Parts: sequence; C-alpha cells; structure tokens
Amino acid sequence: MASLGEEASDQIKVKILAQDSWTKVSCPCCVSDRVEPLVLIWLTDKVQPLTRKWLISLIEDSKRHGGAALLAHPGDDECGDVIVVSASRCNLLKATEDLGLCKKYQDGDMIPFSYQDRDNFSNVDDMTEFLTLAERQYIVKNELDSLQAQKKQKIPGIGDATGVLQAWENVCQKLVKAGVIKDIFPLHDQQKLKELGKKWYSGKQIWGQPLDEIHSYFGGTVAYYFSFLDFYTWALVPSAFLGLFLTFLMPGGGSSVELGDVEDDDGPSVSGHMVQAVFSMLWSTLFMEFWKRRSSSLSYRWGTLQLSEGFAEPRPSFHGTLGINPVTGRMEPLFPEWKRQLRVGLVSVPIVGLFMGLVVLGMTGFYYGEALAKGFHQDSDSWFSKGLLYLPSMVHIVYTNMLGNVYSTVAMQLTEWENHREESSFQNHHTTKVLLFTFINNFAVLFHIAFYKQDLPMLRKRLVSLLILTQLLNQFTEVVVPFIVDRFLSDPQKDQPEDEIEGDQLRAQTSLPPYPGLFSEYIELLLQFGYLSLFSSVYPLTAVFLLLNNVTEIRGDSYKICKLFRKPFSAPVSDMGVWQTAFEVLGFVSVMSNCWLLLLSPRVQEFCLEGGISSKNILLFAILVEHVLILLKMILAFMIPDEPDWVRIKREQMEFHSMQALVRQKL
Amino acid sequence: MASLGEEASDQIKVKILAQDSWTKVSCPCCVSDRVEPLVLIWLTDKVQPLTRKWLISLIEDSKRHGGAALLAHPGDDECGDVIVVSASRCNLLKATEDLGLCKKYQDGDMIPFSYQDRDNFSNVDDMTEFLTLAERQYIVKNELDSLQAQKKQKIPGIGDATGVLQAWENVCQKLVKAGVIKDIFPLHDQQKLKELGKKWYSGKQIWGQPLDEIHSYFGGTVAYYFSFLDFYTWALVPSAFLGLFLTFLMPGGGSSVELGDVEDDDGPSVSGHMVQAVFSMLWSTLFMEFWKRRSSSLSYRWGTLQLSEGFAEPRPSFHGTLGINPVTGRMEPLFPEWKRQLRVGLVSVPIVGLFMGLVVLGMTGFYYGEALAKGFHQDSDSWFSKGLLYLPSMVHIVYTNMLGNVYSTVAMQLTEWENHREESSFQNHHTTKVLLFTFINNFAVLFHIAFYKQDLPMLRKRLVSLLILTQLLNQFTEVVVPFIVDRFLSDPQKDQPEDEIEGDQLRAQTSLPPYPGLFSEYIELLLQFGYLSLFSSVYPLTAVFLLLNNVTEIRGDSYKICKLFRKPFSAPVSDMGVWQTAFEVLGFVSVMSNCWLLLLSPRVQEFCLEGGISSKNILLFAILVEHVLILLKMILAFMIPDEPDWVRIKREQMEFHSMQALVRQKL
Repeated sequence: MASLGEEASDQIKVKILAQDSWTKVSCPCCVSDRVEPLVLIWLTDKVQPLTRKWLISLIEDSKRHGGAALLAHPGDDECGDVIVVSASRCNLLKATEDLGLCKKYQDGDMIPFSYQDRDNFSNVDDMTEFLTLAERQYIVKNELDSLQAQKKQKIPGIGDATGVLQAWENVCQKLVKAGVIKDIFPLHDQQKLKELGKKWYSGKQIWGQPLDEIHSYFGGTVAYYFSFLDFYTWALVPSAFLGLFLTFLMPGGGSSVELGDVEDDDGPSVSGHMVQAVFSMLWSTLFMEFWKRRSSSLSYRWGTLQLSEGFAEPRPSFHGTLGINPVTGRMEPLFPEWKRQLRVGLVSVPIVGLFMGLVVLGMTGFYYGEALAKGFHQDSDSWFSKGLLYLPSMVHIVYTNMLGNVYSTVAMQLTEWENHREESSFQNHHTTKVLLFTFINNFAVLFHIAFYKQDLPMLRKRLVSLLILTQLLNQFTEVVVPFIVDRFLSDPQKDQPEDEIEGDQLRAQTSLPPYPGLFSEYIELLLQFGYLSLFSSVYPLTAVFLLLNNVTEIRGDSYKICKLFRKPFSAPVSDMGVWQTAFEVLGFVSVMSNCWLLLLSPRVQEFCLEGGISSKNILLFAILVEHVLILLKMILAFMIPDEPDWVRIKREQMEFHSMQALVRQKL
Repeated sequence: MASLGEEASDQIKVKILAQDSWTKVSCPCCVSDRVEPLVLIWLTDKVQPLTRKWLISLIEDSKRHGGAALLAHPGDDECGDVIVVSASRCNLLKATEDLGLCKKYQDGDMIPFSYQDRDNFSNVDDMTEFLTLAERQYIVKNELDSLQAQKKQKIPGIGDATGVLQAWENVCQKLVKAGVIKDIFPLHDQQKLKELGKKWYSGKQIWGQPLDEIHSYFGGTVAYYFSFLDFYTWALVPSAFLGLFLTFLMPGGGSSVELGDVEDDDGPSVSGHMVQAVFSMLWSTLFMEFWKRRSSSLSYRWGTLQLSEGFAEPRPSFHGTLGINPVTGRMEPLFPEWKRQLRVGLVSVPIVGLFMGLVVLGMTGFYYGEALAKGFHQDSDSWFSKGLLYLPSMVHIVYTNMLGNVYSTVAMQLTEWENHREESSFQNHHTTKVLLFTFINNFAVLFHIAFYKQDLPMLRKRLVSLLILTQLLNQFTEVVVPFIVDRFLSDPQKDQPEDEIEGDQLRAQTSLPPYPGLFSEYIELLLQFGYLSLFSSVYPLTAVFLLLNNVTEIRGDSYKICKLFRKPFSAPVSDMGVWQTAFEVLGFVSVMSNCWLLLLSPRVQEFCLEGGISSKNILLFAILVEHVLILLKMILAFMIPDEPDWVRIKREQMEFHSMQALVRQKL
C-alpha cells in the first residue's frame, strides 16, 4: 500500500468487487453500474458463517425491521473475514438532510439540504460529487452505529451467554464485545489519496495546504485540525520576526544570541521585555479572534454552519434503566442527571485532584532528591556520587511517564463511568480531564521555576531545552519510527502486484495500525501555544523554533495520516469544539503569566530600584497592569466580531428563509 | 383618579364608550358586544379634524393598504383630542403567534401559540383571559409602530413642509415630530388596578408580591423588575443575619456597634472580616446563579421562553439610504455596520472616556480644594474660613449633578446618532454608556478612599452616610413628593363624580405624568448591590440597611407605578436583559475588591506583622487568593445550571416538538 505513491504509473489496476454480490436495491434511482465500497467491517477469524450472514442481513434489512438499510458485500475471497458496506443514493440524501448539512443550491448559495427540494441542488445525481468521500463514510458509520436490537434475541452462531442481545442494546458494540467485529473503518480511495498526497506533502507546495481536498477526503475534524495548524503557523510569522528583531537587533539584546550562552545573561532589556510581553498578550487575543472568523468562513464553505445536532440518539455505550425520555417520548435507557453530577463531583473531581497532587508531589520529590544528591556529591565527590546526581531526574522522568499512562486510562474510564448521554458531553468531560493533567504536568516545573524560585535564567534554559528536545523527540516518534516500520519491517503482503482484486486490496488496509486520533496532536499544539504565550517574554526566539517545528509538523502529520494508518472516521463539524475553549483559557492565563514574568525580570527590578520605587509599589503597579490588561483583552475579544460580515449575512439569510418557509407552510 | 383606591365603593360607575362609534369589523369571530379600549392616542389641541380623520382611517385600514387593521374610536366628547384604539380577536391571535408567545395548551403545557391550531389552546375564545391586558396593549402599540407611509404623501390638514411623509417613513414618529400626537399610552383598567393595589401595597401582605397579577396587568419588563426586587430582598436576609451576628455577637466585633462611633474603631476582627469577605463573594455568585434559575422558571410561567425576536422591523428612528436588505430582501433603510462601528469607536468611546475623566478630575479638584480650605482655616481660623470649609464639597455636589445631567442627554443623543437598527442593540449601547458613568460617578470616591488613601474608617463612615442619606433622599423624591403633588396640588378635574363618561375618564389619564421608566430603578438596585458586594466587608450592617430599604422600596415603587403615573408599555421579555450582565460584572469586581479590602484591613496588617510576614509576601498571598477566588467563582457559576431541570425538560420538549412538526410537514 504505502509504496504506491512512489510508483510512476498513474493508473491503479485493480479488479473491482463482483458487482452482483452487492445487496440488490429496489428503488430505481439508487440502481447504479458500480457500487462504491465505503466502509469495511473487519471480523475476527473465529466468526461462524452463520453469524456473518445474520450480520449482513441485518445491515441490508429495512429500518422498519430494525436494519440499517445499507448495501453490503461479503467480499470476494475465501477467508470471509470482511464485510464491505456502502449506501444507496436515497439513503445518503436523507441522511444529509438529517445531519443538517448545507449544500450548493442552484443559485450558488450554500443552504441546508432538503430532500423534498433535492432536484434544485447542484450535483445531486452524482453522489461522489454531491457528498464528499468522508461524508459518505460518516453517514454509513452513523447508520451502523444506530443498529439496535428490536427485542431480546440470541446472535446466531455464538453459543454462550455473550451471544445474547438485550432489547435496545447497541448491536455493533455488542459484536465488538463478543469478539465478532475487530474493527469498523472507512476505506482509502488509493487514486484520490495519491492525488491528495501530491498536493499536500510531496514536494513543491511548501506554503499552504489543499484544505478543501483534505476536507473532502478526510472529513471535518481532520480538516479543522490542519486548517488550525496552517493558520497557527502563519500567525507565528510576526512573532518570529519580533523575536529575531529583539534578539539580534535590539540594543542590549545581543547578549542572548548564542543558544549555549543562555544561562549567563539576564535576558532581553527592559523595553524589549515589555514589548514582548505586551505583544504576546495582544497576539494571543488577536490570534484566537481571527481564528474564530476563519473558522466560521470555513464552516460556511464546508456546509456545516447549520448542523442539526438535534435530539440525537444516546451514545452507543450509554446505559441506564429503560424508560420513556420525557423530551422525545422515545423508549430508551435513562440515567438521572443528578446521579451523573454526583459521580462527577464526588468521584471524578477528587480523583483528578489526587493525580494533580501526585504530579506536584513528584516535582517536590525531585527537587528534594536533587538537593540530597548534590549535598552527597559535595561531601563525597566520587564516581558513584556523580552517577547519583542523575538519579533524581531519571526517577522523576520514569515517575512522570508512568503517572501519565495510568492517568490516561483512569481519565477514560472515569468519563465512561460518568455515563454521558451525548457524545459531545463525553468529549468535553474527557478532554477537560486530560487537559488539566497535561497542563499541570508540563507547566508545573516551569511555573515553579518562574514564580517560586524566580530564577529566570533557569527558566530560559529549561524552555530552550524543551523547545528543541521535545520537538525532535515528537517528530522522531511520530513520523520517523512509523515510517521505518512501514517501509522496512512490515508485512511483505503489501508489496503484492497491483492488479490484485479490489477485495484483497481493501482487506490489505487491515494491516495498517488504527489512527491514534487528533487528541495528541492538539495537545502538542496546545503545549506549544503555552510555551509561546506564557513564557516567550523570557526567550523571544520561541516563536522561531515553533515556526520551524510547525513547517515540518504539517508535512509529518499529513504523511502520517495518509500513509501510515487506517483512514479514520471524521464527523462534519463547525469548529474545533472544546479545543477552542482550551486555547482561549490559555490566552487568559498568559496575560497573568506575562505580567508577573515582567515584574520578576531582574532588569525591571534593577530599573525600579534605581528609580527608587519600593518593591511593594512595583507589586501594586503590576496588579493594576494585570487587571487593566485582562480588561483590555476582554474588550478586544468583544469588539472583534466572531464571524466575518459576509458569513453573518449568509447565516441570517438561511435563518430568515427557514423562518419564511415555516410561515408559508402554516398558511 | 388617584383617589379612587381609598373609596369604599367596589363598583366603578362609568358610562362606557358609545359602541357604534367603534370601527366596524367584518370578520364574524371578531364581533363582540363591547370593545375594550386598550390604547389612547393623545392629540395636541391644534390638530385639524381632517388630520384626525385621516389618522383614524389609517389605523382602521387593512394592512394591504398600509393600515394597521386596528379598531379606532374617536372619543365621545366635543374637544376631540383623543383616539381610543383597540384590536380585533383575529389580529390579537395572529400577533401572538408572531411574537412567539407560549400559551396554555389543552394538555396544560405552555407551548408556542399557533394560529392554525388555535382551537386547542385554553381560553382562546375570551381575549381578556387568553392574553393579559399588558400583552394586548403591547400588540396594539406594535401595530401602531409598524405603520409606514407606502409612498411619498402629504398629511391632510398640515400645510407646511413638516406635513410631508417620505416613502417608508414611520407614521407615528412623524406625527409626533409634526406636533400632531402628544403621546400614545396604554389605558388603566380602574377595576383591575384597584384589585391589584389591594394585593400589592395596601396593607396586609407584607411578604411577597402578587407577581402573576403584576405581570398580567403591567407586563413583562415591569414584572421582571419587581420579581428581581423581590428575590433580591429575600436574598438579603442571610447577609443581614450574618451582619448582625458579626457586629453584635462576634468577640471583638462589639466596638463597632454604635453608628455614630464608626470613626474610632478599626472595624470587625480579622476572622470576622474574612468571614464577611468570603461570604460576600459566595453570596454574590449564588445570588446571580439562583436568580437565573428563578428567571427561567418565571419565563416559562409567563410564556416567554420561546420569544421569536426574528427579523424585526428596524426601530422607528433608524434611518439610512433606501435599499434592499440582503437578508430579508425587503426594501428598507440601510446603514453600513462599519460606519456604525466607526461612530462608536471614534466618537462615542472617546466622549464617554472624556466624561469619566471629568468625574475623576472633579474628585481630584474636590480633594485639592478641601486641602486648600483646611490649610486656610488653620492659618486664619475665622468664621469666614470656617464657611469656606464647606465650599469644596458644595461645589463638588453641584458639579457632579450638572455633569450627570449633561451626560444623560449626551449618552442618549450619542446612542441615537450611532443609528442602531435593532431596539435591543440600542438599549445595550445606551445602558452600557450610562452604567459606566454611574459606576465611576458613585464608586470613584469610595475606591479612592479604599485603595488610594487606604483609610478604612473613613470608607466606613462614607458608606454609612451613603446608605442612610441616599436612601432617605431617594424614597422622598421618588414617592413622597409625587404623592403630595398628586394629592394636594394637582388638577381639580380629577375629583369629578364617578359616573362620568368612560371617554372622559380615559382622557383624564392624560393629566398624569408619563412613567419615567425602570432605568433609574435598576440603577438604584445596582448601586445598592455595589455597596453591598464591593464594600460590605468594611461595614457588615450594610445588608441590614438594604433590607430595610428594600421593604419600603417595594411598597414605594408599586404605589408609584399604580397611582402616580400613566401606565407604561411593557414588552414580553424572557429575562432582565442587559441588567443581568451588569449585576454579573459587578459580582466579578466584588471578588477583587473584597480581596484587597481584606488585605488593607489594619487588623490583618497588624496580624501579619506580628506573625513576622513581610508586606511583600502578604501582597503575593493576596494576589494568589484573588486568582483562586475568581477561579472558584467561575467554576461555581459553571456548575450551577442556569435553568431548573423541569424548565430544561419543558424547553427541550418544545424544541423537539417543533422539530418533529417540521419533519412531518416535509413528508
């Protein structure tokens, strides 16, 4: 698979799946020459043909009978461990309306798709044009996820107690638990992937990414991540220039030119320091505000301005006693809100607090151990004691890593146990937990050095080593290692001749590891953003390093998602979700941090002492400045509209038209 | 009029308006025995019968012909300076749907009224039951306000250039400008007013107000004000108890018992001080959060949960070049957003800033003048110099008053000139301007004493005098003076015999002054809330004074609005609007203020010095405490849901049903 990109042939010769094995469709408009394979259900080896047949019939069955009304194909080969799934045109169109996706109307505007009015939308006859690949695959996944047992029943071919489906139990989830389904994932389209790769990471186009193509191939969440990465990288340019200017051209700033030399100087001059702090505060505000504008115009372009989350089904793993939902009147599992809040308040919050305490404890232990080791070394001064000097930081690294691993499991299980009904609520709670920990874990030491030890040269040293080391390490583990594994160590099966049968080719995608998700990517960006906005006034070159890092990060991430993993599902979304909030909160913390860093800067202190200002008055002044800056930041954020005028007008037009339509229907 | 309440007779004997002078209605369901007079248009004396006739025909004309489709009555007397307006049943029902008001469905739930489905709503045959008096009057006002000239035309009976209506010009506004209309106001219903007064202010019921009756008679904004006042008064009870406890029972707190003695002691003890500060912070947060919950349940009860502001007509005084609104496609005046923002940013903001600067300048001048006068008095010590001592504060009072008067005119004109399209946007900008000034004007001196002079005994003295004096003054000017004027000095015409003709009785309401609006009432509450939440830790008895004040304030305000003024129009609203934000912002400022007051308290300082803590470390500690408290406040505000569970479920039910209805209509 992965070696396809390097071959010269533009045509990929594959025999397609036997057409007549697909589910037959009765609806005349859904009949087509070729059914496009969209999603692969990968079964385990031990699955009985009986179970497989039952699953296929469930997928094909009409919704009235509790099926998903999708098209299924058993695969053309003998081993029969896959089911290929697709969807008919009518189904796709109806799902488009349910999702609230906007599509291009005949007059060129994007408006919410209406099935009744379908003939007035552009490209409605060709599903591959009308919906993006990612949207088609997401719709199929959605339909599969909504499969529920109509009544209590046994799964054919599974003997023991694991094979009993309760009424209203989620079928796919049950099958995963029962060891029938290994994974469900969307299929790559090699032709398109190759075209995308050419535009994206292989070569000429260094500035800019093909965002629309990324959105169309990988879908909303992925496209938003790369758009944000793109926007962020560009936004770093002015910061980087300022950093270069302050470091190399500013009078008095020259002393911190050399990297190895950071420990001796006391940083940029007072005015440079202040310029950097104020700039940093302004920059982080403007950055987020303009990203919101960018985000809303992307949302219009990608038709997600009016997504109807509506009254979604509960998430698959939500459980509770069966009852009638007071809002929708539907039969579904119910779980009282107060019980969830009790769980969050009495269990989750203390446990998260405990882990954060453990991080701080670890840090304290490290400093204590370091002091001990130093004392011991000074007393004995042997080879052994020299070795001991490294012990505390090694123990600390191991401790931190283990804690991080344990915590990520705990956070996931706690959130699962909180039993959120909506996926968005689940995501918010999970992300918040992880973010709090990550934030403490990564910034505690820096804050400790900055505000407790008040040792700015050490802060600078630490920041530089973090910037350089962690970035190199990240790039290495994220891209280089998987690349080597992929290229030299992986499954020889992948180098088969290209004119294989499509079914085999599709199954071959199971040999790739599953995509680990965007969570860690966002965390990485957030940490970076933290280094920059919280501490860059100590080391103005931060932005330069981040800029360099991001340029390679874009290539690395894109290569990774295209070549090294299974394609992920990606929902249509209208923004970055909870991550946007996380970045904004960090922006607020940055104002405080910059204020106090400024105050602590030895040059500022010196300057004030020379001017005969008492340290108490400096402190009072700093408090005043902090409050005024936060006020300014809030006013600035309030003054800049969150969406450009043209998007606002488009959105209001949509709202007005839907209101008008409602009135017309009433008359 | 005003003396009616005191009379024993329950029956008010009036001859009603001649039935046959009302506009004839053609719609069979709108014919009724008696048309209820809702709104009075009060014309000036010089109006020509021709103009009056034209206006009546315009009010009666169908909407297709540019009329308001209301019912008009020329009044039964000779002088002909009033037009009484009412509305037919069909019109009222259609307007109810347009407003998005919720009404009781046959199953007892409140759901958005639908004209098509009208027969399934309770009381739909009796408009006086179905809609409240205030709602009916608001609908009539709305219809009158939407009267626009269809084309350029002359107003009959007005000779000069003032009598030319431009196309799309607002008719009522033009007529006010041209001196035809003096005022348009809703009519009191004496019978109902008397009943309301009995329950509200005259006597037995000291605890609680008849909020539903107030809402039904006076309407949304007024009812929200009194509900808030009510809620606020109850919320003061725990604060008052704590204050009493800290002052009289706390060990060490006894020294500040006597009011006259406040200057000598140094306030409550350290622990008492801290208890008060932390309590104050918690209280202000909980108060606002629980008010939001209360507010949303009131909104459900009063049917305003789903108000459709929709795409309203521009406000009457909005002007611009005629063009096509890109959103609605309607012909209307357009005014570019960027131009408005330029006006706000380049003119309004600097002018508001200038006035705030003038306040600060006045304060500085006052302190300077006071120091000068004191110096002079010490030097000369004569009667003249003793008189001079009072000069600075007298000049300052006059200056502040003049500045306030000039500013209120300037604020109104600036906001008018900013040319806001929507009424809500206008209100927000106007209120923000006034609030900023009021805040600075009232709290600048207190902040100066607290944080610049750091003179807590003086702060306490000032606070006590403000609490007592301004409250007495307010009650006096707001209630006592109008009462005396009303009772002894006003128009003898009002003491006419009671069996007068209804028309005369209605016209008699023109002799009352127009209601000044709730703006100043809210400001008064906000200032109170400010004294309490910002500075009460200095003087714990604040809450007791406010509680006493509020109990009389409720009676005073209710008597005032019932008896002393014309009835005001009051829109259906779902919350307090911009005032809610104002109270919340003040809550945030209060956290900071309490932290710093705590720090400055001489006992705390003494305590720290005894403990050997440097003042720099105290300061650092205070910063930490402030940030932690703000974080806590935000978490608390986030954790408490803004609406009770039952309201959330009702709201979601409404949303779900309207979504279902949409889907059903599509199929």
